[in-house]
Formats: sequence, structure tokens, C-alpha cells
Amino acid sequence: MARSFNNIALTGKRDDQTVNESLRLLAVHLGESGRRVMAEVSVADSLSALGVASAGTRTICAEADLLVAIGGDGTMLYAAGLIAEAGVPLLGINRGRLGFLTDVGTERMLESIDEILEGRFVAERRLMLEARITGPDQAVGLALNDVVLQKRDTGRMIDFETWIDGRYVNTHGGDGLVVATPTGSTAYALSGGGPIMHPTMDAIALVPICPHTLSDRPLVVPGAADIDIRVIERGDTHPEVTCDGRLLGILTPSGRLEVRQASASVTLIHPVDHDYFRILRSKLHWGRGSRNPVPGKSD
Amino acid sequence: MARSFNNIALTGKRDDQTVNESLRLLAVHLGESGRRVMAEVSVADSLSALGVASAGTRTICAEADLLVAIGGDGTMLYAAGLIAEAGVPLLGINRGRLGFLTDVGTERMLESIDEILEGRFVAERRLMLEARITGPDQAVGLALNDVVLQKRDTGRMIDFETWIDGRYVNTHGGDGLVVATPTGSTAYALSGGGPIMHPTMDAIALVPICPHTLSDRPLVVPGAADIDIRVIERGDTHPEVTCDGRLLGILTPSGRLEVRQASASVTLIHPVDHDYFRILRSKLHWGRGSRNPVPGKSD
Amino acid sequence: MARSFNNIALTGKRDDQTVNESLRLLAVHLGESGRRVMAEVSVADSLSALGVASAGTRTICAEADLLVAIGGDGTMLYAAGLIAEAGVPLLGINRGRLGFLTDVGTERMLESIDEILEGRFVAERRLMLEARITGPDQAVGLALNDVVLQKRDTGRMIDFETWIDGRYVNTHGGDGLVVATPTGSTAYALSGGGPIMHPTMDAIALVPICPHTLSDRPLVVPGAADIDIRVIERGDTHPEVTCDGRLLGILTPSGRLEVRQASASVTLIHPVDHDYFRILRSKLHWGRGSRNPVPGKSD
Amino acid sequence: MARSFNNIALTGKRDDQTVNESLRLLAVHLGESGRRVMAEVSVADSLSALGVASAGTRTICAEADLLVAIGGDGTMLYAAGLIAEAGVPLLGINRGRLGFLTDVGTERMLESIDEILEGRFVAERRLMLEARITGPDQAVGLALNDVVLQKRDTGRMIDFETWIDGRYVNTHGGDGLVVATPTGSTAYALSGGGPIMHPTMDAIALVPICPHTLSDRPLVVPGAADIDIRVIERGDTHPEVTCDGRLLGILTPSGRLEVRQASASVTLIHPVDHDYFRILRSKLHWGRGSRNPVPGKSD
Repeated sequence: MARSFNNIALTGKRDDQTVNESLRLLAVHLGESGRRVMAEVSVADSLSALGVASAGTRTICAEADLLVAIGGDGTMLYAAGLIAEAGVPLLGINRGRLGFLTDVGTERMLESIDEILEGRFVAERRLMLEARITGPDQAVGLALNDVVLQKRDTGRMIDFETWIDGRYVNTHGGDGLVVATPTGSTAYALSGGGPIMHPTMDAIALVPICPHTLSDRPLVVPGAADIDIRVIERGDTHPEVTCDGRLLGILTPSGRLEVRQASASVTLIHPVDHDYFRILRSKLHWGRGSRNPVPGKSD
Repeated sequence: MARSFNNIALTGKRDDQTVNESLRLLAVHLGESGRRVMAEVSVADSLSALGVASAGTRTICAEADLLVAIGGDGTMLYAAGLIAEAGVPLLGINRGRLGFLTDVGTERMLESIDEILEGRFVAERRLMLEARITGPDQAVGLALNDVVLQKRDTGRMIDFETWIDGRYVNTHGGDGLVVATPTGSTAYALSGGGPIMHPTMDAIALVPICPHTLSDRPLVVPGAADIDIRVIERGDTHPEVTCDGRLLGILTPSGRLEVRQASASVTLIHPVDHDYFRILRSKLHWGRGSRNPVPGKSD
Repeated sequence: MARSFNNIALTGKRDDQTVNESLRLLAVHLGESGRRVMAEVSVADSLSALGVASAGTRTICAEADLLVAIGGDGTMLYAAGLIAEAGVPLLGINRGRLGFLTDVGTERMLESIDEILEGRFVAERRLMLEARITGPDQAVGLALNDVVLQKRDTGRMIDFETWIDGRYVNTHGGDGLVVATPTGSTAYALSGGGPIMHPTMDAIALVPICPHTLSDRPLVVPGAADIDIRVIERGDTHPEVTCDGRLLGILTPSGRLEVRQASASVTLIHPVDHDYFRILRSKLHWGRGSRNPVPGKSD
Repeated sequence: MARSFNNIALTGKRDDQTVNESLRLLAVHLGESGRRVMAEVSVADSLSALGVASAGTRTICAEADLLVAIGGDGTMLYAAGLIAEAGVPLLGINRGRLGFLTDVGTERMLESIDEILEGRFVAERRLMLEARITGPDQAVGLALNDVVLQKRDTGRMIDFETWIDGRYVNTHGGDGLVVATPTGSTAYALSGGGPIMHPTMDAIALVPICPHTLSDRPLVVPGAADIDIRVIERGDTHPEVTCDGRLLGILTPSGRLEVRQASASVTLIHPVDHDYFRILRSKLHWGRGSRNPVPGKSD
């Protein structure tokens, strides 16, 4: 894949000193190498002193060949939202700890960037979800991690039905449901008992949150599945729908939540030595010698 | 798909009175409709009085257009093993309780069979796994549900490494690992905490059994993944490998267990009103009104 | 234990036709047997036509020898809250489905009541919790099931620290924490992965809700443990505290949530054939022949 | 508690160079301080050159005031088995990593020992279990961690019934059952999904291993509970019973497994700064800043 990255947009975690320093270092380096650099609005202030022009989302989508985001995985979710529709590739740089989505460290940032700009990189497409609330409170949103239906009022549970490809699946009672992409399978869905799905999977996981019925277990369906959810009237408890943690709207019994694979997706750019399993091992304390809480079994 | 089912092999749960009666009823019915009927060896005795000829696996694979199995899901696993390589379609008839794989009940058996023979059916391909033990104790087996690596000696745990597509994944300590197909995801893998995978998924789940490390969670990978497993020397505890519950062999530290999607697969024949989710609801006590153990949440 | 139940208060699920009929049947029966009957305010309207006097909580606590509640487990939690401090024994009658706390069915209601009034019953003490929020928003509440700390805003997680008997235990990130009595162990705590605790245990379970860290597992401590919880500042996300599902207050970083075994407790009155495990089997689909989702394992 | 530790027995992990060095260091130090030192048979060879006399279990039980074990938690289980009946207190020294039961590190071994010998220590009683197989294959064993009933043949499951205090609890299908003490709750029971129980609890956990029925969840009962288990005939699959990982015997359908709190218990000796929760945090990667696998939730 011969891409040339001449126009490079930068974004990052807002109001973070370490991130700002790395952004400035990177902006100077890219400018010196003859690239055009644009500052996404979150980081425009921090880069204006270097003469880097601010760019709105529309400009970035139209003109950038690459978006570089410095921060944590939350920053990456934000960055993905900016450029998913336009298909601008995204590179994540972590500010300290390795992230699931930010696999370049600041200590090797400039070398890694140079390698990538010279064409030595791996591009990886990540599936996204589109969530649509139908009915009077209609709304549409995109998610790289997950679409979550969840009770708003503590102390109450919600009842809801799931349908896949027009077929009734189950009636659930509990705190809600996580509909997760493979990318999101290591996020909230994992806390809820869902499986880790390899990021290249064309699959979606439905993970019930604190389900009332103990056999209400995580379900993995093909990426092409049409997932519909209806809530059942229960007093005045109307659950919220979030996309990657951002509120999309309220689901009332007269509406429906439709979750589909989005036409948009995110292309992550990785260094050539990228290894998903190494990231898993690092984040989950896996691997050789990372032992272990069980007395009487190993000694 | 225009198939004609003229040559029909029958098999079933051995030494089961109810199954034998259904088999005889079915054999007579098929004979009267002009089909050629063959009795697989497990049920040959029970059908010989009706003049049904016994047929070996080779004959069934070469000449049968359909294999009908009467019994439970265990019977279906056995039947699948007989005809997977040859691609003979398989129809399951349950003897009482609905099964995951036997979705025709004996009460409507003859009507369902007639509909299917007239061409009104759904054919569904189910992925299978091939397990290969390399090294001095080499062996090869097929599985429709799962390939399981498991400690033999109670009171001991095993240590083993997993590799996917040549990349190191993790070093696990515990009772073992279930490598499950979507079909097997509702079997042993589910008891081990794995997700339910829709049977049409092209996916494989790796589900650790009683893992020592609490973050050692189920992992779902593409159906094309090359899964390699090595055990680590630990005293004299050498784990066993089973395919659908049948012993394949012992895995020693000098060998390797390779699990791949098999070139063979099973084609299940279902009535046209087949509904996977209805089976799930029935088996897992799901669905409307099937409530539920949590006081203070629903009343 | 020689108790005499001469003054009997009645309560029940509000606005429920079936409950009202049972209440009237019971009130007439008790009146005929010479007992004094009081109607708790929730059911006063429904019983006034029979000439049953309404009684406030204070009167019930001072004068009733027994409180009978008809409804579900939610009704029992409400009833327990009324009389816990005063120590009035509580009898639960279910309106249809067996409950964890309502083990007398309406079909045998009058016979069961007569047996109990004649002294043939089992009295069982159930531990309760006292929750105290300290700091500017101080509040105190009682719980028979559980004290729950939980995020209010969907899409956000909370961070909090737990301390037991003055010793630091852990820093948790996730949706919150259930502090459950043995009675509450089959309620929300069970949905969150907690163990079932026998109701006679002098124990408290701390069950994290969707914990961020996979090794953050349920912890069972002695009933005498002092449990303190502090939330950590994280933007403006302040979690709520509920007692048996009723809002107690908001926990801010300047306050502390103290959970202790309450000096009050509830005495449940059971028929002599009461069997906790039979209730568990009924509610959880346990027991002989209640089989089971795993193909290839049982057939 | 005024104890004087004049006669001190030593044991340790066999054939471990690091352990042997620590044992010799300790033996010399104790000898110099005027204590009588005895070498348990596992370490007699290693200490004979120093003139330390070997002592059998009977001598240790009769004459030792303290048993010091150097190794891992497995070594402690072995040591506990030696002296439980006699009530000799036990001190564990880890050879590297902190253990659940060995909370003194070799780096501060001599200082810690001196403090303990001077009377500055905490003594903690740990409940043990007695397992008795009745019937033709009768046997009796003691366990500090757990009594485990488990299938022997991979690929098969076992069916068994549990009874508590003479009342039928449940019929289970699966790989088996862990009956765990609070000490054992962080061992195999934890891998099977059981709760962590504080070591001072008077409680026993029943944790099903890979249960067939998804609602078959861990159950915590009082320490005084009488737990009886019967297996149900199922072909020729007879499960094994182990105590702390050592084989006790086979449970046949004509026998019964009785698990009771043992009259023996173990008294662990800890340094005065002993903190159970610190050990939990260390072993389970808990605590402040030990963060964490969930993208999009924390950044």
C-alpha cells in the first residue's frame, strides 16, 4: 500500500503537559522534514506559538493524509470519531503507559514516525458500529468501541428485548447491554464478562451487564448482523444509550435501538513490529513468569 | 439447492428402546416412499428384522444422500464423525428433549421428514476442527464441538503456551484449554466461561479451563487462525487431548498440538422453521416470563 | 420460643388485585379467630371496607406481634424496613411465584397462618446493614439486602477505595460495589458474580460491579467487619448510594461511606417445613433432572 | 499469648539450592542463640553437615515449639499436614516471591525470626477440613486449602449430589467440586469462580468446577456445616478426591464423601506488621495505580 503522508493533522489529550511537549516536538520534526502540519482544535492553542495552523474537522477530513493522536485510548476514540467517515488513517502515540490503540511510545516517537512516513508500517482496518435510536427521540451515532444501553437510575433494573436479523433472541433483565466491536471487546465488554475478540474479526459481541438471569451470557454474532433492541415499559425507568461513552439519547418503549456495522471504519497505522498479543500480555499481566495467585497449585 | 435424498442412512443412540422404535417407524416409512434405506452399524441389529441392510461407514459415505441420526447431541457428534469427510448431509431427530443439534422432535418426525424429502429444508454448514499432535506420539482427529487439552491427574495443574499464526499469545497455568467451534461454544466451552458464538460464525474460541491467572480470559479468533499449543515440562504431568470427548492422545513437552479449521465440515439439514435462538431460549431457560432469581430488583 | 401473635399487622404490594383479595381473605380469617388486625398504610384503603383500622409505622412497631406481608421480595424489603428497629417478626406470603423471602403460597395461606399462630413455625434472624454517609451530605440507612455504591452517569466509571477494620484493601475502578448481606447474596450481588451465602451466615460480601481490573473479585468478610469506602475525585462523577434499591445519597470525595452490621435485624417467620435449599433450587432451576445446555457432554 | 520457642523444627522445599542456603543460615543463627534445632526429614540431608539432628514427624509434634518452613505455599501445605494434629505453630518464609502463607522474606529472615522469638508476633488460627470417604474404599484426610472431587477421565463429566446438614442441596453435572477453607479460597476455588474469603471467617465455600448448569454458583456455608456428597452412576466414570492436591481415594456410587471442619487446625505465626490485604494486593495486582485494561474508560 503506497501512501504518502504529506499533510499531517495532530491531536491529543487536552491540557496535558506531557502530551503538549510531545506534540510540539513532533510538529517541529514534521515541519523540518517538509510536511504540512495541521493542529486539530483540541491542541490548537498548544501549537499556535510554533506557527502551526489550526484546522477544523472538515479541513482535516478533506486534506489530511494522516491524523496523529497523542494520549490514551480515550483520545484515540475521540480522534477516530473525527475522521472515520473520511477514512483518514490514524496513528496513536501513548504518553507513558502502552494503550490498546496507542502502540507507539513517546521515547521512540520520532524514529517510529520517520519509519512510518517512509512507508514502513502496517495498516489495520477496525470495524465501527452505527447506533440509531428510532421513534420520537431519534438520534444516530458512531462507535469504535461499543454502543451501550444502560439503566440511568441506580437501584432499578431495566427489561429489554434483543432481536437479530429480525428474529427474537431474548428478553433480558439487568443493568443493560454492551454491543461491542472487536476493538471494544477489551473495554467495558470485558468488565462485563465478554470474550476478547481478535481485532481482525468481523464480529460483534452482545454482553449483558449484571444480568438477572444467570444463563444470560455473552453472544458473538457476525459483523453483518442487524441488532435491534427494545425496552419494555417498567415504571418510568428509561435507559440511556451511549456510543464510546458519549450520550446518544434515551430509549423509550416507543422507540427502538438499531445497531449495525457502520459503513465508516478506522484505519489504524502501526509500526511494522506491531503485535496485538504483546499488547494484550502487557495490559492483562499475561505471559511467561507473570505468576500467580493460587497457593498449593504451583509450589 | 436441489438435492434429492434417495439413499438414506440411519443411525442412532445405541441400546435405547425409544430410539429403536423411532428408527423402525422411520425405516418403514422411508421404504414405503420408495427410498433405499441403510442401517449404520450401531443400529443394524435393531433394523435387521425389518430387512434393512447394514452399511459400513465407507458405503454410507459413498452412497448415502442423507444420514438421519436419532438421539441426543452426543449421537450427532458421532454421526458427524462418520460423514464429515464425505460431505453427506446430516439430519438430527431428538428422542424427547430438544437438542442443540437435533431440532426435529419424534412427535412430528414423519411429517418433518416428508417435507425435507420434498425439498423444503434449510442446509447449514458447520465448521469443524482438525487437531494434530506432532512429535513421537503423533495423531490426527476431527471435532465438530471442540478440541480439549486437559490435565489428567487431579490435584495438578498444567502449564502451556499458545501461539496464533506463529505469534506467541500467552503462557497459561490451569486445568487446560477448550478450543471450540461455534457449534461447540454451547458445550464445554460455555461451562468454562466462553461466549455463545452464532453457528454461522467463521470463528474459533480459546477458553482456558480454571485458569490460574484471573485475567486469562476467553479469546475469539478468526476461523482461519493457526493455533499451536505446547506444554511446559512440569514433573510428570502430561495432559490429554480429546476431540469431541474422544481421546486423541497425550501431549508431551517434545510435541505440539496444532488446531486448524478442517477441510471437512458438516452440513446440517433443518426444517424450514428452524430457529437457532429458539433452541438457545429453550436450553438456557431464556425468554419472556422466564424470570428470575433476584429479590428486590423486580418486585 | 413461645410467642403469641394476638395483634397482627398486614401489608402488601400496593394496587395489586390479587394481593388485595388475599389481604381481605386473611383479615376476615384473623378477625374471626379473635385477633386484632391492623392495616399498614399501603393497604389501608383496600381493607377499610372490612372495618380494619389503619395503623402507622409507629403503632405497628409498638403494638403488633407479627407483620404479614403479601407480595414479592420487594414488598418484603419494604416491610422489613418498617419493623426492623422494633423487632416485630415478619411473615411473607407470595402472590404466585415463590420468593426468596416469601415462602408461603396463597393457595395454602390460611392453613399456614393457622399453624404459625398455633406456634408451629421456625423463626430465623436475618442480619441487616447500616449505611452511613459522612461529610456534608450525611445520611443513614438500613438494608436487608444490600448497600450499593454505583456510578450515576452512564459512560463513566468511578474510582473508589475500600478499607476493612481500618486497613486499606484495594482501589477499584468500575461501575461500583455491592455490599451484601447473606439475604442479599441472591439479589444484585449474584448478578455481579458474587457467591450465594447461606442466610444463617454472619458474613458480608463485597462484590465489585463490572470491575475494570479482572482480578478484582468478590470478597467475603465477617459480619463484624467495619467497611469504609471513599470515592476518588474524577471529574464531576459522583456516585449514588442506595439501600435495598432506595436512594440514600451521593458520595463525594470529601465524604465516606461506612457500612456496618446494623443493631437491628429482621426475624422471619417460616412454616416448619421451610427449606432454604428448596427455594434456591426452585429459583435457580437447580436440582435433579433440570438439565442442561451442553451438547456432547450428556448424551 | 506468652509462648517460648525453645525447640524449633525446620523444613523446606526439597532440592532447592536457595532454600537450603536459607535453612543453613537459619539453623546456625538459631543454634547460636541457644535454641535446639531439629531438621524435618525433607531437609535432614541438607542440614546434617551442620550437626543438626534429623527429627521424625512424631518427634516434631511432641517436642517442637515452632515449625519454620522455607519455600512456597506448597511447602506450607506439606508442613501444615505434619503438625496440624499436634498444634505446633507454623511460620512460613518465602524464597523469593511473597506467598499467601509465607509472609516473611529471606532478606529480612533473621531479623524477623528474632522479633518473633522475642514474642513480637501475631498468631492466627486457620480452619482445616476433614474429608472422609465412606463405603468399601474408605479413607480419611486433612486439608488446609481444599477437598476436591474431580473427574478422572478427560472428555467425561460427572454427576453428583450435595447435601448440607442432612438437607438435599443440588444435583450437579460438570468437572467436579472444590470444598474450600478461607485459606484455600485464594487457591483452586478462585480459579473456579469462587469468592475470596477472609482467613478469619468460620466458613466453607462449595465451588463447582465447570458446571454444566450456568446457575450452579459458588455457595458459602457456615464452618460447622456437614457437607455430604454422593456421585451418581454414569458409565464407569468414578471421580477422585484430593486433599490439598494429594489423592485421598476414588468416590464410587456406593460411597459417600463427608467433609467437615477438622478438630485440628493450623496456627500461623506472622510478624506484627502482617497485613492480609497487602498480600492480596501483591498477589492479585490490586491497589493504587495498578491500572488497567479497559480503553475508553479511563483516558
